[in-house]
Amino acid sequence: MTQIPDKEIILNAFDMNCVGHINHGLWTHPRDESHRFNELSYWTGLAKTLEQGLFDGLFIADITGVYDVYQGNIDLTLKESIQLPSHDPSTLVSAMAAVTQNLGFGVTVNLSYETPYQFARRFASLDHLTQGRIGWNIVTGYLDSAARLIDQTGLQDHDLRYEQAEEFLSLCYKFWEGSWEHDAVIKDKSQRIFTQPSKVHAIHHQGQFYHSQGVFQVSPSVQRTPVLFQAGASTRGLSFATQHAEAMFIGADQPAKVKQQVEQIRAQARSQGRDPNQLKLLVGISVITAETDELAQQKLAEYISYASPEAGLAHFSSSIGIDLSQFADDEAIPYQKTNSIASVNQRFKSQKITPNDLKAQLKLGGRYPLFVGSGASIATQLIQYLDETGIDGFNLTRTVAPESHHDFIRYVIPELQQRGRYKTAYRQGSLRHKLFQNGDLLPHTHPVEQYRCQPQDTKTASEKAATKVSTLA
Amino acid sequence: MTQIPDKEIILNAFDMNCVGHINHGLWTHPRDESHRFNELSYWTGLAKTLEQGLFDGLFIADITGVYDVYQGNIDLTLKESIQLPSHDPSTLVSAMAAVTQNLGFGVTVNLSYETPYQFARRFASLDHLTQGRIGWNIVTGYLDSAARLIDQTGLQDHDLRYEQAEEFLSLCYKFWEGSWEHDAVIKDKSQRIFTQPSKVHAIHHQGQFYHSQGVFQVSPSVQRTPVLFQAGASTRGLSFATQHAEAMFIGADQPAKVKQQVEQIRAQARSQGRDPNQLKLLVGISVITAETDELAQQKLAEYISYASPEAGLAHFSSSIGIDLSQFADDEAIPYQKTNSIASVNQRFKSQKITPNDLKAQLKLGGRYPLFVGSGASIATQLIQYLDETGIDGFNLTRTVAPESHHDFIRYVIPELQQRGRYKTAYRQGSLRHKLFQNGDLLPHTHPVEQYRCQPQDTKTASEKAATKVSTLA
Repeated sequence: MTQIPDKEIILNAFDMNCVGHINHGLWTHPRDESHRFNELSYWTGLAKTLEQGLFDGLFIADITGVYDVYQGNIDLTLKESIQLPSHDPSTLVSAMAAVTQNLGFGVTVNLSYETPYQFARRFASLDHLTQGRIGWNIVTGYLDSAARLIDQTGLQDHDLRYEQAEEFLSLCYKFWEGSWEHDAVIKDKSQRIFTQPSKVHAIHHQGQFYHSQGVFQVSPSVQRTPVLFQAGASTRGLSFATQHAEAMFIGADQPAKVKQQVEQIRAQARSQGRDPNQLKLLVGISVITAETDELAQQKLAEYISYASPEAGLAHFSSSIGIDLSQFADDEAIPYQKTNSIASVNQRFKSQKITPNDLKAQLKLGGRYPLFVGSGASIATQLIQYLDETGIDGFNLTRTVAPESHHDFIRYVIPELQQRGRYKTAYRQGSLRHKLFQNGDLLPHTHPVEQYRCQPQDTKTASEKAATKVSTLA
Repeated sequence: MTQIPDKEIILNAFDMNCVGHINHGLWTHPRDESHRFNELSYWTGLAKTLEQGLFDGLFIADITGVYDVYQGNIDLTLKESIQLPSHDPSTLVSAMAAVTQNLGFGVTVNLSYETPYQFARRFASLDHLTQGRIGWNIVTGYLDSAARLIDQTGLQDHDLRYEQAEEFLSLCYKFWEGSWEHDAVIKDKSQRIFTQPSKVHAIHHQGQFYHSQGVFQVSPSVQRTPVLFQAGASTRGLSFATQHAEAMFIGADQPAKVKQQVEQIRAQARSQGRDPNQLKLLVGISVITAETDELAQQKLAEYISYASPEAGLAHFSSSIGIDLSQFADDEAIPYQKTNSIASVNQRFKSQKITPNDLKAQLKLGGRYPLFVGSGASIATQLIQYLDETGIDGFNLTRTVAPESHHDFIRYVIPELQQRGRYKTAYRQGSLRHKLFQNGDLLPHTHPVEQYRCQPQDTKTASEKAATKVSTLA
């Protein structure tokens, strides 16, 4: 194990196109503005704030369906706005991209309910518009309510979902990197050649789930394939993620357990022929910070008075597929095999957990590990967590929006910078190049390679783009 | 027939997320910037320009598939960039909405290849973000190349496509207007009620093409249903359009024929129980204008020297589903029943048209009627065309971009305003209210009514929105 010393922390804001995302109930805080989620200025303001804080990206979660497991209905879901209403995340991107230069955008899309062609076209279009700042968080979904909404009688078997995901991805790779050669577009006005016909190819796909034949409509974008994010902790999900993903979210837990998971993931990536350092591992966290530790604790107490642990329990009920309202507060929740986020659900197998245990964890309405303190104190804790576990960074949830991001940028970022663990300026280039300093495109060791229509010089895509533009002069 | 005197002209810019849209070959003009279509600043610049010109909307065309009929390949399509590459139009909206206040956005989506739920969610999200400025141009597609790309072995029968469209629309109506009552969202922080559970309902749909059951994830937006645009000139398409659409594009032709079509459409709308004036009829046009008639003619000659009539012919070959390269220049093109834009194709039935005839029409690379002259001259011609035919306005294509829009705003708009035929300031409210001055929602006479979960007071939606916001104070 090589421990890279003083690794620079990757930091994404973790948000969603909705009111209550992770820390439920805080929408009732007088200063919270998350009810403005349907206004563009809320998002352009957030994007500008995050770029001021040199955040690597804004990661936008999404869910198809509603949380209807707790008490068998959606009453609390609606009252506390537990990811309902929730709007399409991809619609937010171009407005935020227009007011920023460097911020990346990780957008969650459940592939189960998408036409691969239209999806691939939408994300390639976004990669063009953001000049290479788009990422895709690949999810396959776990809610029965989603399947009922979208013309399926029930959720597919979990392993079959990953087979479909695998095929969906391979078809997208063909669209993104197998149809147009990198130098197909020359924009030559004098010769009247916008695109060289010999360099555009029809793709052919006859699979178990999808069939497609023809030319992709989108010319090569900066990154071609968006940066691929995934969270998959089941055996099948893990194998999928270590093969394809460039960044993974792993469930937060005790540092020792996270460390174990990190080592397992990196070992598996290595065994699949990938450079394990080309897989960035991120943990979701909540932070409450202020000028001093004491003021941060006061802020926490104030926030807690608005939070809703019960709303957190309702959200969690859907995550595990078990109605937690049916157990006494001190009753151990029995493990049940359900449609659920597998990694979360499986914890019930090995541990005796009661609703009381959960409510204690959910005092701020969410289940993410909570760091409370002054900027210096938070910086120390985050660096320690990162170094102990071997992860690469954090997905920072909001608590009271947008106040919590302003606080983090004001108090924590400078402390991380002073300790040499956070950038003081953005690097040049695409989201992928910023993250890996290895060019705009996926490396040759990635599964995409077999679908490329020609050998790619992955390191010089920007130079090639520069050449292309010069033909316009 | 009541002729409303001095009707104010509705004006949309007609564009597409691509290089060559209607007037092909002009991308090679030294001042043309359409090759910048994949840059956000190209679109935010355009949106600001159009709002300065008080345009009602930007109408964004789209096509799924490629034009592969001419010469049986896509060589010319690629060289002249005939709607290829072409990118997803919906990705452009939020950036343009963020830099404008009043401009509407009509976005084309082919429903044949969409999941109704995800589509309805995306457009409802856009209606929120634009504060009620979104429209949907409903198309069903006609290209075999699209069907091959998207997992269908061939195009459906034309009438069946409209049956599917009908069902798709009714399901969208349920999502948009049948799931959430208008006052469901109260955002009451003190009572901890974001949404009142009693006012949100599951929709149920068991149709021939789609099944869906559950609660829509998007709360009511300003317009709920986007403004519905359609172009349908076949008997089945016309009946669909007059029933559902709020604005229709009709094929440009001799004024006498357009007048006939206008009267037929309005009569059919009336027979379906709709107010015929609630259906706005628009014709696509190209305009070349300058300080004087002579300078406009000089500009035309200069533009023509860059245009590609052959590219226009290639585009037209796909529109009619006939490879026009196979006929001698003076050979009458025989009518063939093909997958095509029905209204265009059917003209070959009644008229003897040769490739030479078409090339003469295509001197600027496109088939839209061309108006050339000083601002005063154009204004006179447009007003005459509108009054003679009974249409409501125009979809203005670009020629040399963005120069042609700047010219139109500089020379033509003031002349139209002087004649009292063009607004001098935007009206308040949503795109729908601006167009019809009848509230934000579709009227009771529209087919959506039967899918609404409660009686809608269609005229006071803005007042209700104001009431809702006040509960936040």
